[in-house]
Amino acid sequence: MKTGSRRKTRIITVADIPHVGPGTPAGEWFRRYWLVVGTTKELYDIPQAVRVLGEDLVLFRDITGAYGLVGQSCPHRGTSLEYGDIEDGGIRCPYHGWLFNVRGQCLEMPGEPKDSNFPQKVKQLAYPVREQGGLLFAYMGPNQDKPPPLPNYLPLMDRGGQRQVEPVRRADYNWFNFFENSADPVHVCVLHRHAGYGQQSWGNHFFSYTEMPHFEFVEMDYGMKVVMTKPGPQAGTEFIDEMSLALPSIVQVGDTEFVHAKLDATALINEGSRCEHWMFVTPNDDDHFMLFTADNYTGPVENFFQRLKEMREQERPVQEVKPYDKRKFMPYQGNIRQEDIMAQGTQGLLGERREQLGTSDRGVIKFRKIVVDAIETALQDGTPKGLLPRDPATGVTRLDTTVGVRPTE
Amino acid sequence: MKTGSRRKTRIITVADIPHVGPGTPAGEWFRRYWLVVGTTKELYDIPQAVRVLGEDLVLFRDITGAYGLVGQSCPHRGTSLEYGDIEDGGIRCPYHGWLFNVRGQCLEMPGEPKDSNFPQKVKQLAYPVREQGGLLFAYMGPNQDKPPPLPNYLPLMDRGGQRQVEPVRRADYNWFNFFENSADPVHVCVLHRHAGYGQQSWGNHFFSYTEMPHFEFVEMDYGMKVVMTKPGPQAGTEFIDEMSLALPSIVQVGDTEFVHAKLDATALINEGSRCEHWMFVTPNDDDHFMLFTADNYTGPVENFFQRLKEMREQERPVQEVKPYDKRKFMPYQGNIRQEDIMAQGTQGLLGERREQLGTSDRGVIKFRKIVVDAIETALQDGTPKGLLPRDPATGVTRLDTTVGVRPTE
Amino acid sequence: MKTGSRRKTRIITVADIPHVGPGTPAGEWFRRYWLVVGTTKELYDIPQAVRVLGEDLVLFRDITGAYGLVGQSCPHRGTSLEYGDIEDGGIRCPYHGWLFNVRGQCLEMPGEPKDSNFPQKVKQLAYPVREQGGLLFAYMGPNQDKPPPLPNYLPLMDRGGQRQVEPVRRADYNWFNFFENSADPVHVCVLHRHAGYGQQSWGNHFFSYTEMPHFEFVEMDYGMKVVMTKPGPQAGTEFIDEMSLALPSIVQVGDTEFVHAKLDATALINEGSRCEHWMFVTPNDDDHFMLFTADNYTGPVENFFQRLKEMREQERPVQEVKPYDKRKFMPYQGNIRQEDIMAQGTQGLLGERREQLGTSDRGVIKFRKIVVDAIETALQDGTPKGLLPRDPATGVTRLDTTVGVRPTE
Repeated sequence: MKTGSRRKTRIITVADIPHVGPGTPAGEWFRRYWLVVGTTKELYDIPQAVRVLGEDLVLFRDITGAYGLVGQSCPHRGTSLEYGDIEDGGIRCPYHGWLFNVRGQCLEMPGEPKDSNFPQKVKQLAYPVREQGGLLFAYMGPNQDKPPPLPNYLPLMDRGGQRQVEPVRRADYNWFNFFENSADPVHVCVLHRHAGYGQQSWGNHFFSYTEMPHFEFVEMDYGMKVVMTKPGPQAGTEFIDEMSLALPSIVQVGDTEFVHAKLDATALINEGSRCEHWMFVTPNDDDHFMLFTADNYTGPVENFFQRLKEMREQERPVQEVKPYDKRKFMPYQGNIRQEDIMAQGTQGLLGERREQLGTSDRGVIKFRKIVVDAIETALQDGTPKGLLPRDPATGVTRLDTTVGVRPTE
Repeated sequence: MKTGSRRKTRIITVADIPHVGPGTPAGEWFRRYWLVVGTTKELYDIPQAVRVLGEDLVLFRDITGAYGLVGQSCPHRGTSLEYGDIEDGGIRCPYHGWLFNVRGQCLEMPGEPKDSNFPQKVKQLAYPVREQGGLLFAYMGPNQDKPPPLPNYLPLMDRGGQRQVEPVRRADYNWFNFFENSADPVHVCVLHRHAGYGQQSWGNHFFSYTEMPHFEFVEMDYGMKVVMTKPGPQAGTEFIDEMSLALPSIVQVGDTEFVHAKLDATALINEGSRCEHWMFVTPNDDDHFMLFTADNYTGPVENFFQRLKEMREQERPVQEVKPYDKRKFMPYQGNIRQEDIMAQGTQGLLGERREQLGTSDRGVIKFRKIVVDAIETALQDGTPKGLLPRDPATGVTRLDTTVGVRPTE
Repeated sequence: MKTGSRRKTRIITVADIPHVGPGTPAGEWFRRYWLVVGTTKELYDIPQAVRVLGEDLVLFRDITGAYGLVGQSCPHRGTSLEYGDIEDGGIRCPYHGWLFNVRGQCLEMPGEPKDSNFPQKVKQLAYPVREQGGLLFAYMGPNQDKPPPLPNYLPLMDRGGQRQVEPVRRADYNWFNFFENSADPVHVCVLHRHAGYGQQSWGNHFFSYTEMPHFEFVEMDYGMKVVMTKPGPQAGTEFIDEMSLALPSIVQVGDTEFVHAKLDATALINEGSRCEHWMFVTPNDDDHFMLFTADNYTGPVENFFQRLKEMREQERPVQEVKPYDKRKFMPYQGNIRQEDIMAQGTQGLLGERREQLGTSDRGVIKFRKIVVDAIETALQDGTPKGLLPRDPATGVTRLDTTVGVRPTE
């Protein structure tokens, strides 16, 4: 169906980025990475239907604790394994009792002759799953026997700091509207001027609506970094606030302890950020995605994530909703997440919507180019940009965002 | 995309009438008129999303009181201007703060360099809007700088009588099912025999199921008039009841004060109708339309519209609904508006449904022909039939329906 | 549109079976039989909209008691006859009063001239309907004037035993998932191991999950019979339990009095089944079907169907639903009907889903072949397999399932 030669001659454009189903260019690219498909806390002793990159799958933990991600339709006659019984070393289809292990191998067919070798021949679609720090990663790409290494993501490692994994969040718009939003610092100053970023005191109002920071976009081996600066507190210094975007779909922001946890900005100025806030985006399909968030905090505040949670709960929208106001997303102003959902959820699909881009969109333009290049690389069987273990000493994969004050060069 | 020559060779049929999206024949025709898109009473200090002729738009009133009707998607990156902030002489996109005035001109881009001339170059889709007597009219056709004159519709003029604009009504079927229904007097005697028209005493039971009036259909410069007559109270007289249909989508009926307000029919017989009841139909798209109603009453009854409202509230369906009756539109019999919604809402689309027309459908047949001719005229850049100021003395546009008794010729 | 020659050259496959709309191969085949379209108990004095084989129809009983099944859209201008008034010897469209009798003949057009012959010329789509034992059968095929004989179905005949017709059941998946399920005895031992079939004592646990019965599939002139056997209570005997599938869509099972009514299995062993349980499947379209059930009981238990009803009400699912379990069909285990709905309702469409069939699917494979042959026969204008009066003495049509103990051959 897809020949190498056909692939290579197809020109990839930004209109390809949103589409991740099987056989699409971005879908093939996405399948080169380990993707988060669930959390250990939210996976119970029942099968969990999950749609990933347009494929209907079932995630489960067998009675030995091994994780499986298998095709939702039983290969026998199609009944959904979402209703399978987890027993006897696998998941058993309720209709005729076919039993599959986490690798998709059929182990039993109660209705077939007892000496039949038919079970050995039947293999259900199955993808390898690995657990790391409470997140469940699956690899859905080629060479399933030799998947690429799963990076040791910093916030998922047990390194002595405080860690947290949030329950999955779900959205019903295209994943890339969310992802490229992080390559666009102007929106922080405008859309979020009513919420956390507007209220902060750090850096003398770093994300000011009227005096926006200077920003640069640096291509990285993992993707792109957004570097925002403002004149610092002393001569020869500058405030810096960075966000990192790692392919295929990880965002890390460094200012969570000030924007959301409302810690004293002095510490940020003096010592830099001590909270890594990672967001892993996994598209269900072109119109839905899941968002998994993992944090690592190494600062001095005890029960940091309890505080963060309490402060987030206070971040309700501040917007008055008038009695005649029936708009779907009201209220949204005052809560960063809801502001993003409103703005990104009404954008439509990249490649279908009309756009007029300015110089302040140069981060988005650059980032789209980086993604298009990565898709082309994947289609040519190269290794696209993305996160790899980069510290040979620790083996830990981190994203090097800096938030704080630094000397100007 | 659409060349004049291609247009001229396309043969228009009745199957074209229901379809009003951009680029369709009836859509191009509809865009030659001012259309009602809202009411001043229902437009608050927030943007109002409105779909007109298949286009997603936002209606708003800026802080100076000027009305705007602009494209819903921000031309920058697509976020919906339904969530725009009305401020600073326009509507501001919440995502990056681009500000547009009512003519669609971009005034500000907070993220762009302060000396940028990019704002000047960006113009959002915008249509001119004019207010008249509480209704908001927009012109979405060619030559936006020189739109056709907006007629001075009689019920919207301040002429000393009592006036009323009803809140918008919405329906989820094709606009033409509603519109051509007025070219079909038989339905009044049949469908509405349980409701107002069946209960009336005027004209010795003018709209009788068994003794229907005589009816004629007269082509007018504005569209068509339905003329219904019955033998009058004295020799040499006849009862007359007329309805007018003005292109593209205005209906005026003259007997509201008797059918709905239940005034004594003697007055109607002696003096003729004193209530003009205008309905302006605006398609949202092929499956939905809005209905705006404006009345002008010049008779002696004080608080006529209060009485009309009270009498309409008594027009509940009289139909018993049995416990086992789960049909969607039940009950409908006894309320003219609900009778119409049931009958028109289940018809399907003209051109898709099968029909067998009789001589009693000659009004519908004639009217469809008038509309098809108007579409063809519009596509040939002529001026299609419709309402124009016709009384040079007053400048007021009225529809000349007669209801009452007149001498036979 | 469909020429005989084209039909004959088209190769029919199992992928054709699920599709029953007008003009499809299976649709043409289905239209060779009388199909159940309603029950007399559930047809009131109002029209009943019913979709059959993809056609939107209205079922009604006129004031004389005659049954009609006519096209839903009025042939005049399309308004739905679901809102028709049943009066004056037919059903009258509410919009303009056209009156149709049960044969679709137009009888009146109140708006047309009184001497018009237009009514005589207009015939609405209408199918013949016959009542039998509380079920309403329609024939939607060719040669409507000479439809095939309606069989005298045993459970619908008044023969002295107790009879029952259940209210219609509705499902929102393809009819053939339900129908072929009966050609698949393994599912009884697996899917229903939690419910009635797992709890039974008869035949020393006839439908055991671990010791399944032997089964054979016998092609019959009406379709296929499933014959399940196990070693009997004495040497030289065997337990037997049969199910019959009659084309196009009738299932008869013989063990209802033990599986559901929980009668003492001794009687079944000694005397055989005395309850015929017939299920008539009628597709609304490819994604929905109706299920009509008729029983005939000739055993000694008084008020047998009252007992059956009470016992069925106790067959609630026994499955615990955990607080985090949000799966759509939960709970289902423990109730045979809900187990079937879960398994069949998630299968997807035959021909679209992927399958890997084993030797235990040989009943399904054989049955699909029988259906494909019947479709081909119908398309070649032959008489496809199906139920016909087969007992010349009584004229009654029965399905010869045996349930009980018999000597081995």
